[in-house]
Amino acid sequence: MLNRPQVTLVKVGGKIVEDKSKLTKLLTDFVKIDGYKVLIHGGGRLATQLAEKLDVETQMVNGRRITSDEMLDVVTMVYGGLINKNIVARLQAEGVNSLGFTGADANCILSEKRPVKEIDYGWAGDVKKVDITAISSLLKKNIVPVMAPLTHDGKGHLLNTNADTIASELAKALSSDFEVKLVYCFEKEGVLRSIDDESSVIKILNYTLYKECIMQGIIDGGMIPKLDNAFAAIECGVKEVVITKSTAIGDLSRGTRITA
Amino acid sequence: MLNRPQVTLVKVGGKIVEDKSKLTKLLTDFVKIDGYKVLIHGGGRLATQLAEKLDVETQMVNGRRITSDEMLDVVTMVYGGLINKNIVARLQAEGVNSLGFTGADANCILSEKRPVKEIDYGWAGDVKKVDITAISSLLKKNIVPVMAPLTHDGKGHLLNTNADTIASELAKALSSDFEVKLVYCFEKEGVLRSIDDESSVIKILNYTLYKECIMQGIIDGGMIPKLDNAFAAIECGVKEVVITKSTAIGDLSRGTRITA
Repeated sequence: MLNRPQVTLVKVGGKIVEDKSKLTKLLTDFVKIDGYKVLIHGGGRLATQLAEKLDVETQMVNGRRITSDEMLDVVTMVYGGLINKNIVARLQAEGVNSLGFTGADANCILSEKRPVKEIDYGWAGDVKKVDITAISSLLKKNIVPVMAPLTHDGKGHLLNTNADTIASELAKALSSDFEVKLVYCFEKEGVLRSIDDESSVIKILNYTLYKECIMQGIIDGGMIPKLDNAFAAIECGVKEVVITKSTAIGDLSRGTRITA
Repeated sequence: MLNRPQVTLVKVGGKIVEDKSKLTKLLTDFVKIDGYKVLIHGGGRLATQLAEKLDVETQMVNGRRITSDEMLDVVTMVYGGLINKNIVARLQAEGVNSLGFTGADANCILSEKRPVKEIDYGWAGDVKKVDITAISSLLKKNIVPVMAPLTHDGKGHLLNTNADTIASELAKALSSDFEVKLVYCFEKEGVLRSIDDESSVIKILNYTLYKECIMQGIIDGGMIPKLDNAFAAIECGVKEVVITKSTAIGDLSRGTRITA
């Protein structure tokens, strides 16, 4: 396991992707990351905007999008086309050879349609199997995969899949061949002790402290699934997970480092 | 030059892509093609439909789309997202490992924005350079590239590029490493002597006969740029170009074979 090559996975959400200046800053910093790298992007709000223009109803339950037939077309266009291909073109302009992916491409992420229980999420996919063959081979040719939050069911259907989950599943799978660093970018400096105080970043967050923070109400809401993903990744061999501000990926010591 | 591997490039237009049963038949036949293969798709009409819904004006001059900022977003979503990713997912379901491409991906097709002369075509790109490195490497891993009619300018901008042109430019470039067969699918059985008689297919069309047919008015309109592309490909080392009905790619002897 010694001397495995390093790879950095950066996950960037819709709020950054939809803001031209923030995206530019992010890409400029991303380009400077040494070694192999992968960019995973979201894009929820841009999909919501297009859906509105097309009179396709946006329904969210617990922060998850209900993906009707029409909404699947919308997210396929926005995530797989508009956002993904523009990022690829912009990375090319920075001299970074990149290639856009969805989970259907090279069969890299197979999902299953989320079973209908209390809620029917429609064409939402839960990751079943990650095949890193093509991604690994492209990385070794210095091509940067840019991953959109779409997967497929192996039966010809695309599925809408949470970008945080894709990032952690891909990180776990790549850990077989690489020393993986996973960086979640968001709007805050890191996981904060006090939500309104950007200087209250928890520098190191281990599982015990995490559970304490939940008990004390310091960590709640949308941070919990994000951090659950992060700890799951660490448990499955990912070397390091960092949660930080999108403008800070040039200096990862600023954010929150997740450890076992 | 002996023993070069064979590759078949199939170009399929928007009229087939937008018709579910025609596309299904096409993909079923495409899957059966032996050896390495590439699918290049158009999708003009679906873009026009989305543009209409979004109140983006469609302007065509000489069969070419004027690509405004808004129209570039529309074609990026429809060609690079909706059509491309659905074809990839469907090929995966048939057991064909495939990967969606635009010319920006892996920097494979660099274009320049068409210079403004009498007409400003907007974000339309004329192919400048094809780099087959990634495509060639994926083919050799038995991954089928699925190419959308988009390229990039190397300065961060995507460009709308004619799918016939992409097919012939890619065919020419791949001829350095492969024995290339290029198949253009359209609605007719082949190049016809008499436009209304599907049995009047010109089986073999060489350049001399082509010029005669133009003089006599047998070949005109949209067939001319298509055939110009075909002859240009043959001249640049492509082994064989066939023009045939989309439902006939299982038996290429039915169509028109272009020879030097």
